[in-house]
Amino acid sequence: MDTGTAMPELRRDPVVGYWTIISTERSRRPVEVKPKNLAEERHCPFCEGRESETTEEVYAIRKSDSHPNSPGWQVRAIKSKAPILSMDSEFDRFGRGMYDLMRGVGTHELIVECPSHAPSLDELSVPEIGCVIEVYTQRFNELEKDLRFKYALLFKNHGLISGSAHDIIRHTRSQLIATPITPKRVKEELVAAKNYFERRERCVFCDILRQESEDGSRLVLQNKSFFAYCPFASRSPFEIWILPKKHCADFGKLETILFLDLATILKECLSKIRRMLNDPPYNMILHTAPFRRRKKEGYWKTIEEDYHWYLQISPRLARDAGFEWGTGIYINPTPPEDAAQLLREIDAPAP
Amino acid sequence: MDTGTAMPELRRDPVVGYWTIISTERSRRPVEVKPKNLAEERHCPFCEGRESETTEEVYAIRKSDSHPNSPGWQVRAIKSKAPILSMDSEFDRFGRGMYDLMRGVGTHELIVECPSHAPSLDELSVPEIGCVIEVYTQRFNELEKDLRFKYALLFKNHGLISGSAHDIIRHTRSQLIATPITPKRVKEELVAAKNYFERRERCVFCDILRQESEDGSRLVLQNKSFFAYCPFASRSPFEIWILPKKHCADFGKLETILFLDLATILKECLSKIRRMLNDPPYNMILHTAPFRRRKKEGYWKTIEEDYHWYLQISPRLARDAGFEWGTGIYINPTPPEDAAQLLREIDAPAP
Repeated sequence: MDTGTAMPELRRDPVVGYWTIISTERSRRPVEVKPKNLAEERHCPFCEGRESETTEEVYAIRKSDSHPNSPGWQVRAIKSKAPILSMDSEFDRFGRGMYDLMRGVGTHELIVECPSHAPSLDELSVPEIGCVIEVYTQRFNELEKDLRFKYALLFKNHGLISGSAHDIIRHTRSQLIATPITPKRVKEELVAAKNYFERRERCVFCDILRQESEDGSRLVLQNKSFFAYCPFASRSPFEIWILPKKHCADFGKLETILFLDLATILKECLSKIRRMLNDPPYNMILHTAPFRRRKKEGYWKTIEEDYHWYLQISPRLARDAGFEWGTGIYINPTPPEDAAQLLREIDAPAP
Repeated sequence: MDTGTAMPELRRDPVVGYWTIISTERSRRPVEVKPKNLAEERHCPFCEGRESETTEEVYAIRKSDSHPNSPGWQVRAIKSKAPILSMDSEFDRFGRGMYDLMRGVGTHELIVECPSHAPSLDELSVPEIGCVIEVYTQRFNELEKDLRFKYALLFKNHGLISGSAHDIIRHTRSQLIATPITPKRVKEELVAAKNYFERRERCVFCDILRQESEDGSRLVLQNKSFFAYCPFASRSPFEIWILPKKHCADFGKLETILFLDLATILKECLSKIRRMLNDPPYNMILHTAPFRRRKKEGYWKTIEEDYHWYLQISPRLARDAGFEWGTGIYINPTPPEDAAQLLREIDAPAP
């Protein structure tokens, strides 16, 4: 039964070419990772004062007289206890018969978003969320320095059971995973944005912003610097995208002066979703440019002009099933125009 | 709030180009389609004798002296009560500002797989499953005659809640949806198989069969005509693919003489999964060639040689979350070699 190594292995499907991570570290017995009762939650290792129960701290915003891995922090990035990818070897590609493999080199960090036991990011104050955004950008910029990584994905699984035993603990946090490849789905978006730019010499996201702003039917809310709306082809009911109004490809380059504007709109969007749908499970995914050090690859040359970062928030009300898997076409019972109107109308606590 | 039409609308994402079906027929209030308690199941409209409670029958294997929409059937195809796509208008493409839309023309059928209340396909006998396969092929060949359709997807959501109120009723059935487009995910696979064939003049699936047969570590079981194995880059733990050993692109062309061989291997695979994982939710998806009437499109010319139909069975033990959505990379904690060994070892009832 032993595959000879606990190192995560990336395997390429020989037909379509998607990659799968075979990561036995996370669990050998998937039968045991069925959704557990939330009542089982008793002891949260992410709360302040329990730093010794978590893995090593890689970065924190903390009081100047406090020490790493001890109390006194506001936001804390730590290594994942059940990493999807790990740094224990060099990046390596090889074949096995007709199949292609890679060693699963990468990092997996958790960003614990507050010291007290808050289950939701939107329960924090705007300045506290501002600190969370500061840590997001700091970690992106730090990981970019490691030449083994081509991409980093920041995401949040709120209320979703995805396989790790930690998932049942409701202490707000995000995950950041750096990968040795630019994932296929990310490349698709980059290539599509580049093609649009080449035809029209305009950023497709800037064009969307202009149309959505004039139309108004899918607008959720906006402030000086950010625009939140339900996308035209929303795959989930009540899906929201938050875009910076000023064109910018790279989230890591977000100016400090914009942290509070982003925190404000993010808090409002998340509270509206929580109130509207009774605290639904949701994913938050940051779409941003890959790390750009290899200037020769075509789609990285023009990326400053043709890509535009955004935050996607997708409530997960129904589970995607056979039709979605077989076709890639999602079925959404709530027109985004209806969702946006309901979200505009529902009160969210004033920032 | 009214979008002016109850007709499903296909909307194209302006960046990457995926399509979403906005289908308000299925539900306006997604909050209400949260998983319901199975105890709520009391009355099954799919059982024999309740034909008047379902929508119209489109085909059935039934006793020669019985009548449509009455008892006496073994397998019954009916129209879906909550169709994802409908036939109420002509196919039509149009634009709205920078956005692209289509009318949601198509059909959506349910194939009720037995007259008595059996929750699982593998609980039927081999000859009964043979009848189910006969109805699958009959419906494919019938839908192919309708020139509005380019593709039909056959799938089964076992134990999964996907949005329809009917989902809580555990009477074994599959769904068949015909679409006016060849879905992006299907095209990707066709194009990839074609590219492989052009380089090597061999079918990629035939090559996989040969390698898996020689290797043996991922084999689950085989008989004279079919081969079942856990694919090298399995996205779900205990994923199984069933392929015909003799090259064939089109499931609709399955010879009658092979119905029982396919029924036998399908019954055994599904029982092994049920016993191994305690009746897990799973998807079954049929991957087959699109309807081929427009010979001019390049990837349809050679499809007889370069594509190979197969059945995919994917237990859904963990829910895919932010990382999978953001990257398209799935994380699987169970190496397919381990899964295959466990599946080989577990007893399934003799056919």
